Amino acid sequence: MKEQTRADVIIRADFVAWNWWRRCGRGMGLMQGARLIGLDWGTSSLRAYLFGDNGMALAERMAPSGVMHLQRFLPPGKTEAPREQLIEAAFDEICAEWLAEKGRNLQVIACGMVGSTVGWKEAAYLKVPVGTGALAKALTMVKTADGVTVQIVPGICAAGVPGKSFPEILRGEETQIAGIIARLAVPESGASENLLIGLPGTHSKWVQVRDREIVSFSTFVTGELYGLLTRYSVVAKSEKKPELLDAESFHLGLQLGRARTGEAAGGLLSTIFSTRSKRVLSELREEQQPDYLSGLLIGEELASVQRVLARDQRSLSDYSRILLAGDRALCARYQAACRQLSWPAPDFVEGATELGLWSIAWAAGLVN
Amino acid sequence: MKEQTRADVIIRADFVAWNWWRRCGRGMGLMQGARLIGLDWGTSSLRAYLFGDNGMALAERMAPSGVMHLQRFLPPGKTEAPREQLIEAAFDEICAEWLAEKGRNLQVIACGMVGSTVGWKEAAYLKVPVGTGALAKALTMVKTADGVTVQIVPGICAAGVPGKSFPEILRGEETQIAGIIARLAVPESGASENLLIGLPGTHSKWVQVRDREIVSFSTFVTGELYGLLTRYSVVAKSEKKPELLDAESFHLGLQLGRARTGEAAGGLLSTIFSTRSKRVLSELREEQQPDYLSGLLIGEELASVQRVLARDQRSLSDYSRILLAGDRALCARYQAACRQLSWPAPDFVEGATELGLWSIAWAAGLVN
Repeated sequence: MKEQTRADVIIRADFVAWNWWRRCGRGMGLMQGARLIGLDWGTSSLRAYLFGDNGMALAERMAPSGVMHLQRFLPPGKTEAPREQLIEAAFDEICAEWLAEKGRNLQVIACGMVGSTVGWKEAAYLKVPVGTGALAKALTMVKTADGVTVQIVPGICAAGVPGKSFPEILRGEETQIAGIIARLAVPESGASENLLIGLPGTHSKWVQVRDREIVSFSTFVTGELYGLLTRYSVVAKSEKKPELLDAESFHLGLQLGRARTGEAAGGLLSTIFSTRSKRVLSELREEQQPDYLSGLLIGEELASVQRVLARDQRSLSDYSRILLAGDRALCARYQAACRQLSWPAPDFVEGATELGLWSIAWAAGLVN
Repeated sequence: MKEQTRADVIIRADFVAWNWWRRCGRGMGLMQGARLIGLDWGTSSLRAYLFGDNGMALAERMAPSGVMHLQRFLPPGKTEAPREQLIEAAFDEICAEWLAEKGRNLQVIACGMVGSTVGWKEAAYLKVPVGTGALAKALTMVKTADGVTVQIVPGICAAGVPGKSFPEILRGEETQIAGIIARLAVPESGASENLLIGLPGTHSKWVQVRDREIVSFSTFVTGELYGLLTRYSVVAKSEKKPELLDAESFHLGLQLGRARTGEAAGGLLSTIFSTRSKRVLSELREEQQPDYLSGLLIGEELASVQRVLARDQRSLSDYSRILLAGDRALCARYQAACRQLSWPAPDFVEGATELGLWSIAWAAGLVN
């Protein structure tokens, strides 16, 4: 692993300046320089960015209009409507004002579940290895009733190798990765770096990037399991979720989750139950259960990432950098876990999706 | 492992005869010989048995009156009421008729969540090793407003040994085990047998019995995870659950779930995701997802049971018999899994809870 270099500082300084421009932009008439609308359109929410020259985000909007949550666009009195109609209504709600200002000749790019079979139009998965250029060449076009063209970024898949790996898919994260790759293109970083990128979330992805291309990745259902268990389960449902991380419980869970022998010999199906048994026998208080479980699952995830690398004859030391992107608070939790598990310290990359949308649009010639 | 012996045949023949008597009982005036009411009172349901001489079940009733589902006993217009009041109402609904016939001097014994902190009265956990005699000596008594005495069976706990095991608890299953031990008390079975007993369910228990006492046990949250994932998850929610087991998908999941290398290197958080990725890439049809996931989780559970035994310097061959009790269809699934994993064939024991209730009551001198 390389030492923390000046590049890290640049990544952050760059972002601070960028955010400053964005905030200033609104009051300075920069809306006139709008070049591109970028949509991060997932299952439960829709986030839109208005980009100016050089990918500067001039404005940002968010709506609870994920592709699985479009009921509020149903015509009055109706219980169903064609999916395209609902999607276009959600699109108009968030973009119409921006499009009107520019006379509708603004380019639009979108990533995420909007390109799935339950989205606007299917944007087929590309097989690894995939870089920003390949994504840009495989955009799927849809046209709204009003004649606006929207380009959808494809997902990525990796075929399974019998006895070695099962098939993997991602959608939306390819854009985050494109953003991270773009953000790292500073003099200090060689183009042929090996990167290990963690994208914690409902389905956490751990992505290996070589020569600026995604070469392989693995998924862990950590966030989804945490949500299901704390919301619905007998074993770990908790009404009391503390605002602040309970570091002690988190650490306790982490140590059990990372292990596979001794107390952890029974594996995850067994260790999850300790959330309940320790609570019943007063070794854990109710408000400690969520962070204990979080530590348990994140510990299992990180240890499993190392086992997947080992299966592929690799190890953490093969990567010049480890990076995290996504929700800031969740990434901070992963950074704490990495520290406790003696991993090389991962850097947090902010704004990866928006930069990725711009980069792919730029590579596709939608902007220049 | 002992060969399948005549004892198995006896266990089953015994049960068939018993059931025959039970069915006949109602029409033959045997209600007059009622000796004991046994309650299997869990979180979601309540099952009541009326026992005659020698533990013959004369009648059986069931109600959706688990200790967490007592809302329907709320007085009209009320949204809450003291827990004892709701519990007594549920008790009366299911038992009042039986108690009236015998003039209220019938003994009552109850097991399950009714003895938890959210039940009628807490029946503290006994520490392993625990046999039927110890359970019988530790009954917790409650009296209804009408003066009926109910004896509640305690749960069992095992303290954790730092670095070796975490604490374990069970409640309700101790009665199933008492029933299995009683059922096995036939000439062919030595009293000092080592038994390994699997109780599949929401929280599957694997219990080691030595000299007719529970010496240790482990919990696996297999059933709860399966329920949460098929009901609520993005990864494995399925509207299509086939009536019949899809043996091919079940087997496929089982092979991945039992493994820890190759495709399974990423552990359970990773393998669960294959339910989705294989579906999206058309390697699995939607209606195959539930049985694939079921195989995956049961495979993980059984492999983990073996790892827990190995941690304790034991193995499957140390047990003279492996037994399963609980839901018949679920146990059949575990039997199929054991076959595919080359385990010694487990026997299914029917009616364990009702026999356990009678055995504990008998040991406590409530009946003789």
